[in-house]
Amino acid sequence: MIDITDRVRNKALRDKIVSAEEAAAFIKPGMSIGTSGFTPSGYPKAVPLALAKRIEKEHFKINLWTGASVGPELDGELTKVDGIDFRMPYQTNKDIQKAINTGKVSYCDLDLSSSAQMARYGFMKGNKIDVAIVEAAAITEEGNIIPTTSVGNAPSYVQTADVVIVEVNTSQPLALEGMHDIYVPLDPPYRLPIPVVRPDTRIGTPFIPCDPAKIKFIVGTDITDKVRPLAPVDDVAKKMAGNLIDFLDGEVKAGRMPQNLLPLQSGVGNVANAALSGFINSKYEHLTVYTEVIQDGIFDMIDAGKLDFASGTSLTPSPDGQKRFYENIETYKKKIMLRPEEISNNPEVVRRLGVIAMNTAIEADIYGNINSTLVNGTRMMNGIGGSGDFARNGYLTIFLTQSTAKNGDISSIVPMVSHVDHGQQVVDAIVTEQGVADLRGVCPRERAKLIINNCANPEYRPLLMDYYERALKATMEKGVAHTPHLLKEALSFHVRLAETGTMKVK
Amino acid sequence: MIDITDRVRNKALRDKIVSAEEAAAFIKPGMSIGTSGFTPSGYPKAVPLALAKRIEKEHFKINLWTGASVGPELDGELTKVDGIDFRMPYQTNKDIQKAINTGKVSYCDLDLSSSAQMARYGFMKGNKIDVAIVEAAAITEEGNIIPTTSVGNAPSYVQTADVVIVEVNTSQPLALEGMHDIYVPLDPPYRLPIPVVRPDTRIGTPFIPCDPAKIKFIVGTDITDKVRPLAPVDDVAKKMAGNLIDFLDGEVKAGRMPQNLLPLQSGVGNVANAALSGFINSKYEHLTVYTEVIQDGIFDMIDAGKLDFASGTSLTPSPDGQKRFYENIETYKKKIMLRPEEISNNPEVVRRLGVIAMNTAIEADIYGNINSTLVNGTRMMNGIGGSGDFARNGYLTIFLTQSTAKNGDISSIVPMVSHVDHGQQVVDAIVTEQGVADLRGVCPRERAKLIINNCANPEYRPLLMDYYERALKATMEKGVAHTPHLLKEALSFHVRLAETGTMKVK
Ligand SMILES: CC(C)(COP(=O)(O)OP(=O)(O)OC[C@H]1O[C@@H](n2cnc3c(N)ncnc32)[C@H](O)[C@@H]1OP(=O)(O)O)[C@@H](O)C(=O)NCCC(=O)NCCS
Ligand SMILES: CC(C)(COP(=O)(O)OP(=O)(O)OC[C@H]1O[C@@H](n2cnc3c(N)ncnc32)[C@H](O)[C@@H]1OP(=O)(O)O)[C@@H](O)C(=O)NCCC(=O)NCCS
Repeated sequence: MIDITDRVRNKALRDKIVSAEEAAAFIKPGMSIGTSGFTPSGYPKAVPLALAKRIEKEHFKINLWTGASVGPELDGELTKVDGIDFRMPYQTNKDIQKAINTGKVSYCDLDLSSSAQMARYGFMKGNKIDVAIVEAAAITEEGNIIPTTSVGNAPSYVQTADVVIVEVNTSQPLALEGMHDIYVPLDPPYRLPIPVVRPDTRIGTPFIPCDPAKIKFIVGTDITDKVRPLAPVDDVAKKMAGNLIDFLDGEVKAGRMPQNLLPLQSGVGNVANAALSGFINSKYEHLTVYTEVIQDGIFDMIDAGKLDFASGTSLTPSPDGQKRFYENIETYKKKIMLRPEEISNNPEVVRRLGVIAMNTAIEADIYGNINSTLVNGTRMMNGIGGSGDFARNGYLTIFLTQSTAKNGDISSIVPMVSHVDHGQQVVDAIVTEQGVADLRGVCPRERAKLIINNCANPEYRPLLMDYYERALKATMEKGVAHTPHLLKEALSFHVRLAETGTMKVK
Repeated sequence: MIDITDRVRNKALRDKIVSAEEAAAFIKPGMSIGTSGFTPSGYPKAVPLALAKRIEKEHFKINLWTGASVGPELDGELTKVDGIDFRMPYQTNKDIQKAINTGKVSYCDLDLSSSAQMARYGFMKGNKIDVAIVEAAAITEEGNIIPTTSVGNAPSYVQTADVVIVEVNTSQPLALEGMHDIYVPLDPPYRLPIPVVRPDTRIGTPFIPCDPAKIKFIVGTDITDKVRPLAPVDDVAKKMAGNLIDFLDGEVKAGRMPQNLLPLQSGVGNVANAALSGFINSKYEHLTVYTEVIQDGIFDMIDAGKLDFASGTSLTPSPDGQKRFYENIETYKKKIMLRPEEISNNPEVVRRLGVIAMNTAIEADIYGNINSTLVNGTRMMNGIGGSGDFARNGYLTIFLTQSTAKNGDISSIVPMVSHVDHGQQVVDAIVTEQGVADLRGVCPRERAKLIINNCANPEYRPLLMDYYERALKATMEKGVAHTPHLLKEALSFHVRLAETGTMKVK
């Protein structure tokens, strides 16, 4: 067994050190398990693996509540043994996606900023957390928990769970201690203002407060975070990033944005990381970041001397980025803080700081409605994540997408999105590699022209314009033309894709 | 001319008193005008009427920015003379609705909490406010403005306008003074927490601060607010209200809500007023309200001794309610406060207080997505108003609607809404006269069953269930069944309505 004695500084708690199997044996069928973890960072690994082994033999299911997506030891292994009944609030694992889309797992997609409070309020299936499983770098003398590479919802799950299992992970450097700022708001009617006024405001403790009596098991492990490589930034992505920077340049020139911009938030995935890459070679200095996930682009910005501070809830580096972070942790630590997702994504704070929200769309429609979650309106991709938290409350809300997907067979600009996560009221601008549609103060009829002409792929522009013009004519005749649509054809691009394999008209 | 000398307490400003025509003559074609007013309450009347007369002769257009909907003297008369080019952020007047839906007015529908800051940021058409026209009960000795029956966006418009025109309205009782609490947040990166921690927290001034040098014209008038009668609460509405109260009773019993609930917010219109009526005869006491519009139901709750305090941005009584309010203003004043809509609807405050958000849907779909604005996806009704501000941030987010409209020819529950204002992630429950669908922690496949069985009209249940079951089968076969849909049929209820005049299958 891995020696974690040093990391369990509370001597009495050392008696609770057990094997992963022993801890996993405590979990009963139907229990709701709340874990640490946000992206494949800082999630428990050994106990979930032991639990999956047990479920494989004993055949039962649990409800899994996390911070967001987690690594394969949790979503992957538990799904493979058919061990998950209910899942919230976000996921990206291919196995669980398959289970969700074939009706085996009930997946409740939630705004990440709300997920902890909905858990505390007793609004989720199972009503309350039975067991919290939290990865830790160490346990303090008082029994408090030092998190690792993410915070997520761990503080609330620890607070509300009956029983806490701590996984002390020796692959996580002790130098992580001091990077976290843990604050759990009181619930209404007692809640007070969340006092974050700049990305670097410290408002809480560097540990997750925990009554040591609640810690029933402590498990040692050295399984590493399963971070994943990012796609290289290709030419299309570079163009998109260039368009984004040009747009922000215009805002600064017009006096609508300070010289060092406002705190940046960028979404998850390849497109978002590409967007961030645009800032590294830009003229901007003294940038700040108030976001969810800290990807490689942020280390690049620190190295380039462009970034004053970054606040997030999770470190989500590539394997190379992880190495770079661990090697230079003392430097990066000065400029990075990890908070609970309830704070990193909080509408109150996002709006106060005036975050520039830059998230990725699966598809956008000609009126600026955004689909971030459901391919063809039915297949769950990942989930809304924090995109709603930031999009609804940002100073400037931008969605990015390539103008096409699947080698051009899909237009990411469609007449009507097949599902809406972000309504046109909150979307200020859409950016593709083709250009930018600035939608502020623009009515739907004008939006359609801007989006088709500036953002859609030239190959799809005639088709989209044809739809818009016919819709305009038909609705004008009836005096119902605020947002022109032909309901019979609104989803025809998607139907054509399903029937012919392409949105193009052959 | 009406004598307003007493009400203009700053003696120097009395020199600025002119006729409405003189003030209106200052307005140039293409200017952006920001006015007070929220619902047909507290909006300027005399200057808009004079402006409409001028436009009738001179033929030009202006951009009109208000708090929300306003009375006929403004939206109605200016539309009749074709005087509005751009309009934001909300409207309910039949004339302007027609102009919006026939392409004559560019209407930008906005979340009300964001409308003032978007104006300050320079994000609207015209970029900035040229002239603010504000209704006042009086002007103080310092030149500050005492608002009347609403606050809306007046403080921000006054702050950012080059020139201010004040309409002192003698039909508005001076006793309104002291009811307002005016606070305009600083803009990022300087914004600080908004210190409202209870519905009755006072954080600002009882007047709109104004540099007297900006006040160019003062106009006297006695034209009254054009408040409108409410529909009587019929049996269907009573059933809906009963279902709502039963649902909240269950929350209290389950320990998920305090005995006196949490601050109530209710939307606009007949359904919302009916919902409030349910509280008057309920067992609840010491209720509080944190809302946008204060309708008759709130006076009833005060009279019944049920309500401790109500905060809003506008008094929106019926003609009877208006009379009752004016006659008992000193009593009501103790329990009512009017704030800028940026504060009454603020995501930060709404989430902190844990508001119970109760808004009305035009239609809901079987997965819980809500359409509040666009009939058949194209015709603008009123706008999103504050429904998004409250729905996204409420402790509990409830949408109410009758299960059918237009004598049963329209089912308000449809397979897929024709437009989405509130995505399924933020909707906790749907209430109709048929029952309640509690959607918390429930995945889309389960949601469909709850909504169809509990909320849809029995006449439409078989049609809806047939759609759901076929969609489930088709998407399960393809492994894309998180949210089952048949894209070819998703909008078929709406298409059938357009083609046959009813959603029923004949
Ligand atoms: C929208 C989202 C899926 C895009 O991810 P990404 O990695 O940047 O984008 P990609 O272009 O690589 O697309 C990912 C996949 O979607 C597919 N796709 C993209 N647009 C599509 C469209 N219009 N229709 C169908 N599929 C589409 C891509 O082909 C790719 O498929 P693959 O996985 O089979 O290769 C992702 O950003 C997301 O899940 N967002 C929601 C959550 C969120 O925004 N969180 C951030 C808050 S901080
Ligand atoms: C949704 C909204 C229009 C409902 O208003 P209401 O007065 O309570 O509801 P009613 O049932 O009387 O319906 C109003 C109209 O919509 C029609 N309607 C209702 N449901 C409909 C449907 N599913 N399809 C088509 N028309 C529908 C009604 O027939 C009625 O039409 P009419 O004006 O021609 O008579 C109104 O609440 C609104 O504008 N909401 C958005 C803004 C908001 O919520 N603000 C509150 C924040 S504080």
